[in-house]
Amino acid sequence: MFHHSSKLQYTVTVDTPDPQFAKLLQQAIGGVEGEIRVAMQYFFQAMGARGDDRIRDLLMATATEELSHIEFLGHAVALNLEGAPVTVQEEAAKDPVVNAILGGANPRHLLSSGLSAMPVNANGVPFDMSHVYATGNIGADMLANATAEAGGRVLASRLYNLTDDTGMKDMLSFLIARDRMHQQQWLAVIEELGGLSASLPIPNSTPENHEAMQHSYYFLNTLLDKEAPQGRWSSGPSLDGRGEFSVKQQPEPEGQVPSLGKARPNSGAQTEQM
Amino acid sequence: MFHHSSKLQYTVTVDTPDPQFAKLLQQAIGGVEGEIRVAMQYFFQAMGARGDDRIRDLLMATATEELSHIEFLGHAVALNLEGAPVTVQEEAAKDPVVNAILGGANPRHLLSSGLSAMPVNANGVPFDMSHVYATGNIGADMLANATAEAGGRVLASRLYNLTDDTGMKDMLSFLIARDRMHQQQWLAVIEELGGLSASLPIPNSTPENHEAMQHSYYFLNTLLDKEAPQGRWSSGPSLDGRGEFSVKQQPEPEGQVPSLGKARPNSGAQTEQM
Amino acid sequence: MFHHSSKLQYTVTVDTPDPQFAKLLQQAIGGVEGEIRVAMQYFFQAMGARGDDRIRDLLMATATEELSHIEFLGHAVALNLEGAPVTVQEEAAKDPVVNAILGGANPRHLLSSGLSAMPVNANGVPFDMSHVYATGNIGADMLANATAEAGGRVLASRLYNLTDDTGMKDMLSFLIARDRMHQQQWLAVIEELGGLSASLPIPNSTPENHEAMQHSYYFLNTLLDKEAPQGRWSSGPSLDGRGEFSVKQQPEPEGQVPSLGKARPNSGAQTEQM
Amino acid sequence: MFHHSSKLQYTVTVDTPDPQFAKLLQQAIGGVEGEIRVAMQYFFQAMGARGDDRIRDLLMATATEELSHIEFLGHAVALNLEGAPVTVQEEAAKDPVVNAILGGANPRHLLSSGLSAMPVNANGVPFDMSHVYATGNIGADMLANATAEAGGRVLASRLYNLTDDTGMKDMLSFLIARDRMHQQQWLAVIEELGGLSASLPIPNSTPENHEAMQHSYYFLNTLLDKEAPQGRWSSGPSLDGRGEFSVKQQPEPEGQVPSLGKARPNSGAQTEQM
Amino acid sequence: MFHHSSKLQYTVTVDTPDPQFAKLLQQAIGGVEGEIRVAMQYFFQAMGARGDDRIRDLLMATATEELSHIEFLGHAVALNLEGAPVTVQEEAAKDPVVNAILGGANPRHLLSSGLSAMPVNANGVPFDMSHVYATGNIGADMLANATAEAGGRVLASRLYNLTDDTGMKDMLSFLIARDRMHQQQWLAVIEELGGLSASLPIPNSTPENHEAMQHSYYFLNTLLDKEAPQGRWSSGPSLDGRGEFSVKQQPEPEGQVPSLGKARPNSGAQTEQM
Amino acid sequence: MFHHSSKLQYTVTVDTPDPQFAKLLQQAIGGVEGEIRVAMQYFFQAMGARGDDRIRDLLMATATEELSHIEFLGHAVALNLEGAPVTVQEEAAKDPVVNAILGGANPRHLLSSGLSAMPVNANGVPFDMSHVYATGNIGADMLANATAEAGGRVLASRLYNLTDDTGMKDMLSFLIARDRMHQQQWLAVIEELGGLSASLPIPNSTPENHEAMQHSYYFLNTLLDKEAPQGRWSSGPSLDGRGEFSVKQQPEPEGQVPSLGKARPNSGAQTEQM
Repeated sequence: MFHHSSKLQYTVTVDTPDPQFAKLLQQAIGGVEGEIRVAMQYFFQAMGARGDDRIRDLLMATATEELSHIEFLGHAVALNLEGAPVTVQEEAAKDPVVNAILGGANPRHLLSSGLSAMPVNANGVPFDMSHVYATGNIGADMLANATAEAGGRVLASRLYNLTDDTGMKDMLSFLIARDRMHQQQWLAVIEELGGLSASLPIPNSTPENHEAMQHSYYFLNTLLDKEAPQGRWSSGPSLDGRGEFSVKQQPEPEGQVPSLGKARPNSGAQTEQM
Repeated sequence: MFHHSSKLQYTVTVDTPDPQFAKLLQQAIGGVEGEIRVAMQYFFQAMGARGDDRIRDLLMATATEELSHIEFLGHAVALNLEGAPVTVQEEAAKDPVVNAILGGANPRHLLSSGLSAMPVNANGVPFDMSHVYATGNIGADMLANATAEAGGRVLASRLYNLTDDTGMKDMLSFLIARDRMHQQQWLAVIEELGGLSASLPIPNSTPENHEAMQHSYYFLNTLLDKEAPQGRWSSGPSLDGRGEFSVKQQPEPEGQVPSLGKARPNSGAQTEQM
Repeated sequence: MFHHSSKLQYTVTVDTPDPQFAKLLQQAIGGVEGEIRVAMQYFFQAMGARGDDRIRDLLMATATEELSHIEFLGHAVALNLEGAPVTVQEEAAKDPVVNAILGGANPRHLLSSGLSAMPVNANGVPFDMSHVYATGNIGADMLANATAEAGGRVLASRLYNLTDDTGMKDMLSFLIARDRMHQQQWLAVIEELGGLSASLPIPNSTPENHEAMQHSYYFLNTLLDKEAPQGRWSSGPSLDGRGEFSVKQQPEPEGQVPSLGKARPNSGAQTEQM
Repeated sequence: MFHHSSKLQYTVTVDTPDPQFAKLLQQAIGGVEGEIRVAMQYFFQAMGARGDDRIRDLLMATATEELSHIEFLGHAVALNLEGAPVTVQEEAAKDPVVNAILGGANPRHLLSSGLSAMPVNANGVPFDMSHVYATGNIGADMLANATAEAGGRVLASRLYNLTDDTGMKDMLSFLIARDRMHQQQWLAVIEELGGLSASLPIPNSTPENHEAMQHSYYFLNTLLDKEAPQGRWSSGPSLDGRGEFSVKQQPEPEGQVPSLGKARPNSGAQTEQM
Repeated sequence: MFHHSSKLQYTVTVDTPDPQFAKLLQQAIGGVEGEIRVAMQYFFQAMGARGDDRIRDLLMATATEELSHIEFLGHAVALNLEGAPVTVQEEAAKDPVVNAILGGANPRHLLSSGLSAMPVNANGVPFDMSHVYATGNIGADMLANATAEAGGRVLASRLYNLTDDTGMKDMLSFLIARDRMHQQQWLAVIEELGGLSASLPIPNSTPENHEAMQHSYYFLNTLLDKEAPQGRWSSGPSLDGRGEFSVKQQPEPEGQVPSLGKARPNSGAQTEQM
Repeated sequence: MFHHSSKLQYTVTVDTPDPQFAKLLQQAIGGVEGEIRVAMQYFFQAMGARGDDRIRDLLMATATEELSHIEFLGHAVALNLEGAPVTVQEEAAKDPVVNAILGGANPRHLLSSGLSAMPVNANGVPFDMSHVYATGNIGADMLANATAEAGGRVLASRLYNLTDDTGMKDMLSFLIARDRMHQQQWLAVIEELGGLSASLPIPNSTPENHEAMQHSYYFLNTLLDKEAPQGRWSSGPSLDGRGEFSVKQQPEPEGQVPSLGKARPNSGAQTEQM
């Protein structure tokens, strides 16, 4: 069960409201790199967690933290929208600076939300929940979570560079820090479970007789005019320690020509197809 | 530039066509765990790749392989739809077996595609390209790719269990194998770049003075009635070797109460809010 | 800031797991009538609340409750999926009962989530955040909230009728009760603000000289072959007490024929349009 | 059956075409607050209307009016796009005013529609029909309709403030008026059916033994650090006249810890979860 | 301006209600081949029509007809849902026939709409307005319309084969007929404008010096292991009468290797990319 | 099976990087008129092709070419983003030119992709695969393909007018040329199959006794105040040579008033509806 206390997790101040930056900040709320995504992803993973209960607790505790991140980011968006123009004035229509600001802001921040945050990204596209990755496989889910936090910290770092506002920089520096921890926390779960080599391949429960092992360790070079790039992936022991990497150059197709023959009567095709 | 040869990458046979399994297979084509996603994700990452050109080649070569996976899966769906009923007959209407088959199949496999594959998932929801993760940060992207392949192999393993068809099992065993390789290949890129500890935190180019380092290494326990779960994430050196994990129990909010005050005139609020 | 305690808000038991009912329950999680929607709607309204701080607190408190509803519904879905078939067996393939169950279940409950809840509706369509209605106008928002709870209670009542499971009926009877309270709570805010007649028209802050008042109180009967339906809406004082309802029969258009003339050169039209 | 006459419902003129305002106006066509939504919502409610035929007629008549609103708004968008630049000129590339205009306009108004209206919102996001709320319950539907008209009038009022164009102000004043009527018309249906107290709870046909009535009338205060806000919702008779409002402070969870145990073999989980 | 008369455009009867067929019929309402799409497509094309006013009238008249098609199809869905089970009974739970019917029906036809039509397709996916194609180019639009009607008649023909109900067959035979006319009507507009050869290439207003004409008439054979297929497209005069078709075999790329070099500082990339 | 060679199909140069033009170019990648759409549409049509194998080869060869178009357009976007600002500087914040550029660019080109192409349109809306039209009917599919290429060439022509960059104009002139060929190539398939009159109506395999032929050849004039527009569509032989066009003026509805009666008990309606 969830509870709420009335203060924000972290102090948010905005020295100079900036409607354009409000638009950019939306990516951290409703973007695929944003906080709604991680809050919901960890929440659904927690609800489906099977096995070690510590992982469920980790997931739920961090889902709860991410909800608090949505909250202070939402406040930051509203503060950046303070003072944004809500009526058009004659002088503004001719002022390129004002026009530029209006042009670069999200008009729905006024039209739809009345100067507050929305669950959309920096293009105004609403977040959709298909981005909540929760497979029931703890290895796949921990990688998904580390990925989400990597994207989140990339985003927060870019946002940091795009503002001069002291308050905004301070808030973003907090997010940059928490995303560092969260990246590590999910990868630490993999460590706790024996490390990457024990976890791979994901799922590690698939019986080997379900797998065409002769195809499990080569890099397929589908490039016609280049040698395969050489590196850790092209030779030496595989990361799971059970095979040896190799390269398959200029592969010939192994399958058939996929002809489906004629269309069936009554299937809605043209007569010429039958 | 892309090229095509007329044979499939891998032989596809279906011993007993099964429209219900055709519906399930769609998840491997148009699901978030499916082949359209990885093909497009690696393709867009390749187009935006900066730095070591080997990585761009790896990405493009594997994008190309994934396109070939879409192709043979699409053929598998069409073969499973061979013989599916296209007209209703009086006896069928009363036959629970036929009804069950029709009920469990995707009706759009007849209505919309005329007995062939569609770019949709097992619920008939079209794939949307917001799932193409390509950040321009090679660390974030490699984790995203390993995640995608983990989800893909989980899916292929589940599909393998849901069919008795020899041909389908053979095809899925090939996918299970390739997904093993692809998981490792992307993680091997991280190894090549110095390993996880060198890559973390992602992005590793963010200056430390952009980060509130005092918040970078603690697990925040937002659970009111439980101790924080203990593990690799709660104590000991951080994975990036630059800090020490700790736990922050029962946190007090650090921020303010986020009151926005009154609504502005002309902002479309109710009079009572002003 | 949010917090979490480890127990569910309400006890959830399932006497007989039913994968088909798990699919139906998803509507209460990820449908437009579901709990993700209300949790997020109240949360975003709270973050944008201006004026009376009591309303912000009401919104945030109830957002927090709805998060707890997601949590126990998610558990209910997982319990209903216990024992669902994860492999196909020869006898099952021929058993119409098993086939019917599989046909009526959501295959992604196995394929994608590994037997747990997803943020999707009963058709497997993911929730998208465009359904979070938060206008910054408290009158519009309270109506939106009462609407959401009305839809929610309609849904819960229908679900109640579709299960014989004692545990599920008990859980749904709790939701039916909470939705009763929530409907009333949002409408009570309107009462607190002076009642409907004081709130209408929404927004009540729009100056009357922004409105073509001669068009404000008639029902427009666009039906060619019927008299306008008579009722509270067709005569008598308006609900806001500032006008008198009437009917405008068989209206003539007041506007012009909307001809746009020729297409401009270089606008990508056909030559014949220019 | 529908019919059409060639003139617009209302005269539309634009004194000074403004591509930026064309973009804003799109919200009134293809936004969730817009005319496509209400036209389709009332149309689908009418098609599913059961009970009093007057309501079906009301719904269909107003659906028909809203189609006419789409039509004149579509014309308004096209008129605002008259004269928008379709080729780039050297001087424009350096002129910040022109650049600002181009930056603030929707480029798809040229690229995709050739200077005419599209079924998208002010961010260019297409309208999707999941926003058509039609439950088959007349109480829920009337609230949904009043909500839609409230959002619509908020939007029209904001748009009115964002233009100086006499023609556009005139057109918007007409929409502001019609939305006033439509808000009242749907609420008047509830009056006709006995008023809010008779309608609540929605659905009012759910038997009370389907409801855990002990949970039907308290406000749940999930806020840890604040008293529940006091008001019409916290004490006194409930709006449906069948109960008494109260507050439940600092609730303890009533449910269990939701542990799912181990993952099943063959379910695609990691070995460590089994 | 639109008007409505109370009778359906065409008589709709259902001899034996069939909830599964109700689900299939939804494709004709809310599918990409359905009536909402054509109604809205012709409506938006009409609103943006420039040039010959007859075309605008054709578009608006047919948009209006398609609205009437939605209306009678919506009624057909509701009639097919008459008598669908709304409560579960003990015997039904064990009856495979009933289960098959429930499994094959759309549960949201009860849960969300209360036994009436929804603006969704046969998979329950809501229609989204991005499918409204209206380019402002009459040639492109007429092809798009003929395409939509072709898809519509394919769908209606398939639906016809999937029902034994006399009433449903009669209604579908009407749609099959109207779609024949509509296909021809849009292609007849192209005839009226001089025929295909005059219309091609679309847009026919693009100056030839904007086009790399040396690439305008060859079929590019990207197949590595096959000769190009021979036909009307590979030799002989082009359809626009301005060129000669040819085949370009085994093409060499004409472009460069697309290397982007290093990532920029402060761009959020990994250090190794810089 | 697919293969790749390392050079682009066509040389791409950008003389002066322009982040605003990068945003516009996205329409040609991820718009409904763009290259992802045609690549995937032809690919899925090829996978489902039944009948003449030459058509399957045509489809697959051209799908492959379109993938190469995505590739060089993706490079063009990245080149236009070279030099775009990644940090804010004090002078920039006050410079209207810089602000205008930032306002008119897509912020996600930095925030999400790190200065490279994304699978989105010019509004930042991701491409969704519901736009892949592949019906299994070759007539419907060829029209859909000609439509897609018509939209594509309209778009490329408009983009050509919106840039002064020599390199971009050259690249677009290549696309304008290829789209000319592709339009003709798909229409040439219809010629090869006997021409339009033999193909119509689509599907031409529907038995005439499935069609209410008395409704197959009239234009329905639903306009109340205008004669039907006269033209090739209103009189003379039909395009399929099997009928004669006519006009049906001021039609009376042929159907019934669609009343559904009362709502059923337990269906979630209000008591007043029962």
